[in-house]
Amino acid sequence: MDMATPLVTLTTDFGAGSPYVAAMKGAVLAVNPSAQLVDLSHTLPPQDLRSCSFFLRSCVPYFPAGTLHVVVVDPGVGTERALLCVETGSQLLLVPDNGCWTELACNLPRPPRVVTLAERRYWRSEVSPTFHGRDILAPAAGHLSRGVLPQQLGPPATKWVELKLPEPRLTSELLKGEVLFVDDFGNLLTNLPGDVYLSCRERIKEVLVGGRAVTRQVRTYGDASAGELVVLVASAGIVEVAVVQGNAADLLGATVGTPIRVQLRLPHRP
Amino acid sequence: MDMATPLVTLTTDFGAGSPYVAAMKGAVLAVNPSAQLVDLSHTLPPQDLRSCSFFLRSCVPYFPAGTLHVVVVDPGVGTERALLCVETGSQLLLVPDNGCWTELACNLPRPPRVVTLAERRYWRSEVSPTFHGRDILAPAAGHLSRGVLPQQLGPPATKWVELKLPEPRLTSELLKGEVLFVDDFGNLLTNLPGDVYLSCRERIKEVLVGGRAVTRQVRTYGDASAGELVVLVASAGIVEVAVVQGNAADLLGATVGTPIRVQLRLPHRP
Amino acid sequence: MDMATPLVTLTTDFGAGSPYVAAMKGAVLAVNPSAQLVDLSHTLPPQDLRSCSFFLRSCVPYFPAGTLHVVVVDPGVGTERALLCVETGSQLLLVPDNGCWTELACNLPRPPRVVTLAERRYWRSEVSPTFHGRDILAPAAGHLSRGVLPQQLGPPATKWVELKLPEPRLTSELLKGEVLFVDDFGNLLTNLPGDVYLSCRERIKEVLVGGRAVTRQVRTYGDASAGELVVLVASAGIVEVAVVQGNAADLLGATVGTPIRVQLRLPHRP
Repeated sequence: MDMATPLVTLTTDFGAGSPYVAAMKGAVLAVNPSAQLVDLSHTLPPQDLRSCSFFLRSCVPYFPAGTLHVVVVDPGVGTERALLCVETGSQLLLVPDNGCWTELACNLPRPPRVVTLAERRYWRSEVSPTFHGRDILAPAAGHLSRGVLPQQLGPPATKWVELKLPEPRLTSELLKGEVLFVDDFGNLLTNLPGDVYLSCRERIKEVLVGGRAVTRQVRTYGDASAGELVVLVASAGIVEVAVVQGNAADLLGATVGTPIRVQLRLPHRP
Repeated sequence: MDMATPLVTLTTDFGAGSPYVAAMKGAVLAVNPSAQLVDLSHTLPPQDLRSCSFFLRSCVPYFPAGTLHVVVVDPGVGTERALLCVETGSQLLLVPDNGCWTELACNLPRPPRVVTLAERRYWRSEVSPTFHGRDILAPAAGHLSRGVLPQQLGPPATKWVELKLPEPRLTSELLKGEVLFVDDFGNLLTNLPGDVYLSCRERIKEVLVGGRAVTRQVRTYGDASAGELVVLVASAGIVEVAVVQGNAADLLGATVGTPIRVQLRLPHRP
Repeated sequence: MDMATPLVTLTTDFGAGSPYVAAMKGAVLAVNPSAQLVDLSHTLPPQDLRSCSFFLRSCVPYFPAGTLHVVVVDPGVGTERALLCVETGSQLLLVPDNGCWTELACNLPRPPRVVTLAERRYWRSEVSPTFHGRDILAPAAGHLSRGVLPQQLGPPATKWVELKLPEPRLTSELLKGEVLFVDDFGNLLTNLPGDVYLSCRERIKEVLVGGRAVTRQVRTYGDASAGELVVLVASAGIVEVAVVQGNAADLLGATVGTPIRVQLRLPHRP
């Protein structure tokens, strides 16, 4: 852990400008006033673990070694669900045990090291049953950023909740998936892998999103005209449907869960 | 004042992403490029001093000694209302004299030390009559974060505006209050003290919010099922009404000012 | 460039809490974990260069020497449009070549020094055709904040896109302009210069915004009563129309482009 740069990021569903976010920032800084706070998002859809999972895998990999990520999308706050410190590669996550991080960690070379936050000396002295983010996760981040080691926070965890995500169906005739995330432009991010899509791009007969055909395949938005409905590989490496300088979610009435189907011609036999 | 960590927080009603927030950040950093800026909220309801007061008391106490808080909810900008530097315990607030901070300070062991910002040498050279946040408060924060002392900013203030807040009525038969704040989940935060509520919990006959009965009392959200309407003590130590994984404000049509009544059975005479 | 304070600001139209903003932050910090990130705005109207231009000129001048500003409002992402590093006075901008910065720079004492980002060694190793903010601009900011010089990023640019802005018409009988920006209070910021307006203030017959007369001229909001429609000189030095403690955009149905006309009496001949 590189202690020269105690970066602590915050990701919540509390809402932009929520007093809960502000209180968590105070609780980190009260332990380590030198922590460098970085807001990732506070507008994740409330208690939506799939969106949280998509969000984390879209941005966490870009951060440097030693970054601590505090994530509070926590429908189970106050119940018996555990709180975890997860070491993924060279970064640390402090999260409720609800699976929000397992997609992010699924491609790591080594399994993550996980501990359960059990040592009360690293918590705030009073713990509210409705706000573990402020009273447990934030002070834990403050302590880690000062050099406390993950294993000091509690015992190793050997099992945890895995988030079940909708798997795409990929055959020689059909790529079938669904929308995982809608960004603020209304672009539709799907669970179809970009590399698979590109490898069979010559054989595409039709792309259907929510029953509507997307006829234009492009490399980037600027390859089409304003208002055109296009399919492309997103910066996250997955198939995306967009309206150039417009809003695909509005145009198609699409949202998380809307199906996408890529119909293929059969490959030529050699 | 701990000068090793020049934390400067910003709280405004300017709107997320407002150019006014950005200009204030520039004005702090122009005086002290090493100031550590922390966004608290920029989406407080416009010119709503009660929400601002609730917000500050919900988060400021969690920050470390030496933190400077710049607060700009300022319906009186450009008029004769003063600007103040308030020393509450070990933190400093830079605020318009409109009472936004008096609730926060009401439980301090000692009365706060307050000065009026009068020394123009700590202001920007040009002061707009519509933007004292950028031209007076932000540079004052920059100077304080560099070691200027509060008393250098101007003379002591001996009186200031006190914010009048709705007082709950607490009798042996009835706790009567109102909603003070609605968070982004739609949870209703009221002015009923959590400790009073807990002390008479065994005697509750009925909890009414905006005329509707809340029948389930819980310790935390996870104690009830998704969709249930519950009453609990919030992380801020006050009575809260919530819908588990849902939105109580929407369900009840409740907002700031909506009444809450807790009907009690009389205590048994010994 | 003052390397003691590697301030890197971020301005985008990605939406508050977007994973794209978070990924850009990671990409800056991956190059320089000591960079001090400052969010300016992430809620600029999507792909609206005029709003972006207005925003930048409203806040960038307040920042200290050495600040790096990364700006990603980029309808042309992935096309042949260049990416630029612009040295304006003592600050640096990293921007797509779409004119978003030219209004900001138009009053500089010297012409800006501009280079085209061409040196791939300062980019991320993989560059997505839809996200140059993350893959080119953010790492370039990281490198500049560590002491890399602008001229190392690529060759000098000798021409660039200039943003065309609506010019006000200013005669001895009429000041005619339009709304350039609507802030979060609903205040209307116009392209009429404040000094011209003030110089002929005694001769004003009528101020019309979207066909409606604004009869009250004030110096600051507090000079009128709550609910009054007023005209004043904004903190940005331009003519503003506002409703005191209210929303002028809503009241007048006004938006960007709505005309404003200030009718004048002819000056007295001496």
